[in-house]
Amino acid sequence: MATPKTQPRYLTGDGPALKQFLDRFDVFLFDCDGVLWSGDHLFPGTVETLELLRSKGKQVVFVTNNSTKSRADYKKKLDNLGIPSNVEEIFGSAYSSSIYISRILKLPPNKRKVFVIGETGIEQELRSENIPYICGTDPAYRRTLVAGDYAKIAAGDPSLLDPEVGVVLVGLDFQLNYLKLALAYHYIKRGAVFLATNIDSTYPHSGALFPGAGTMSAPLVMMLGKEPIALGKPSQAMMEAIKGKFQFDESRACMVGDRVNTDIRFGVEGKLGGTLAVLTGVSSKEDLLTSSVQPMAYMDKLSDLLGADS
Amino acid sequence: MATPKTQPRYLTGDGPALKQFLDRFDVFLFDCDGVLWSGDHLFPGTVETLELLRSKGKQVVFVTNNSTKSRADYKKKLDNLGIPSNVEEIFGSAYSSSIYISRILKLPPNKRKVFVIGETGIEQELRSENIPYICGTDPAYRRTLVAGDYAKIAAGDPSLLDPEVGVVLVGLDFQLNYLKLALAYHYIKRGAVFLATNIDSTYPHSGALFPGAGTMSAPLVMMLGKEPIALGKPSQAMMEAIKGKFQFDESRACMVGDRVNTDIRFGVEGKLGGTLAVLTGVSSKEDLLTSSVQPMAYMDKLSDLLGADS
Repeated sequence: MATPKTQPRYLTGDGPALKQFLDRFDVFLFDCDGVLWSGDHLFPGTVETLELLRSKGKQVVFVTNNSTKSRADYKKKLDNLGIPSNVEEIFGSAYSSSIYISRILKLPPNKRKVFVIGETGIEQELRSENIPYICGTDPAYRRTLVAGDYAKIAAGDPSLLDPEVGVVLVGLDFQLNYLKLALAYHYIKRGAVFLATNIDSTYPHSGALFPGAGTMSAPLVMMLGKEPIALGKPSQAMMEAIKGKFQFDESRACMVGDRVNTDIRFGVEGKLGGTLAVLTGVSSKEDLLTSSVQPMAYMDKLSDLLGADS
Repeated sequence: MATPKTQPRYLTGDGPALKQFLDRFDVFLFDCDGVLWSGDHLFPGTVETLELLRSKGKQVVFVTNNSTKSRADYKKKLDNLGIPSNVEEIFGSAYSSSIYISRILKLPPNKRKVFVIGETGIEQELRSENIPYICGTDPAYRRTLVAGDYAKIAAGDPSLLDPEVGVVLVGLDFQLNYLKLALAYHYIKRGAVFLATNIDSTYPHSGALFPGAGTMSAPLVMMLGKEPIALGKPSQAMMEAIKGKFQFDESRACMVGDRVNTDIRFGVEGKLGGTLAVLTGVSSKEDLLTSSVQPMAYMDKLSDLLGADS
């Protein structure tokens, strides 16, 4: 079922090819930033394109690696941008992580607590799955290590290392600090499962790049000499969670994205029937054509799909 | 001048071999933690061993990757442990970094400022070389990013990105935060030289491991896709600085340490006449004998050198 190694087909302006492409799929998974909008700027034609798909009975899913927002938060963002959606169409890495912890990890009853490095989006999604957690946005963790802490941590003192923690989940945390890293390291050394919502190295904002969720787990990877299980794109753990929820025929699903190495790879490795790249985000046309992972098709911009009706 | 690929010689208890070993060298470079002491525990015989070496006219140099302490701070630590020393015998990675910046990097006059991620040890050593710096322990950098900061950083606003910064120097910083990482990344993207005092993944304390200086630069390495120039062991930049300062005959210098991959490698790659491993720290006898980098000789503990006089 591997994607054929032919050149990606360029669809912009080719009405019959566009129509044929749409007809092949029932489900469209969308990466958001770089595809539907950039930062706070909605691309022209995004709303109309989604309307076209829905009018043809296509299932639309918004797939985001952003772990700082819950599905409810993300719905608000879509609302603010003027994109109609419902919460059930949204699939984020915080939600994906919560599903993985509650339904796939078999944690002993006394090891069900999650030590969170991350923001409120993760906390909300953990609560939605009734998973207990500590740290996260708790201000008690916004402090420096003091002299006595080192010996307490070394000794596994329960005032600093909760014996019920069985998972460390690392996402983007704007309040990352030395204490959180030290505790996360010691929990994992004591046997906790090492998870990351996603491992994107950068977080795009205001047209520039800032430290991404992957930079929060990078110090731990260096100390531990091992990688986390990542629950965002291109991890297939996220794809399994999406397939489990939506129960679609994968041969009739298409991943749409702007990054070859995350979005397109996610769809190809997930054995979806199709992948579609747009050039409004990170990857350039040259990136697409020279990458070892290639989309089935590409377009200048998402709204070129509207040409399927003309 | 490569170290011969014979098995390391075991010196403990072998009086004639010990005497012969000492006679081969005029200079002994010591790694400290794991060799002279462990944490706050001075190993028995350390003081007497250093006295023996000095009584034989040997030059002693204390080489440490710990960037949180200046040479003056480190002298205090040696004093507190009861080890006689003077500041000129101490060579730390903060000092090594300052020497590198002031004497080796050719910075244009309008790019001489250093953006520091690190503690007071770095600041003191930069001041000793008259190098201007920002950040470090400045409490103004102990804050979160606020909404407007992203756009300002993206635009290179001089209120957040000082145009005179030409170097980013990263050491162990117990107050590491998102703002510092974001600024460091943008300085380097704008052309600043990327330096690290050292890249040790862990920082030993209270018999356990905590995040080391290398974990402070790891997020930047991930974002940038490039490594910093590291100024601590086993970087030869540090060896060059030591040789430049002490002007010794390298064939008559010996590196003493407990870690094969840092200390012994440092001496071997620095083409010193000898390397001596002790088994009171990180590397085990098996590590020594199976490593691709091997010491010339090894002993159970440093004070076994006292047997050279018996």
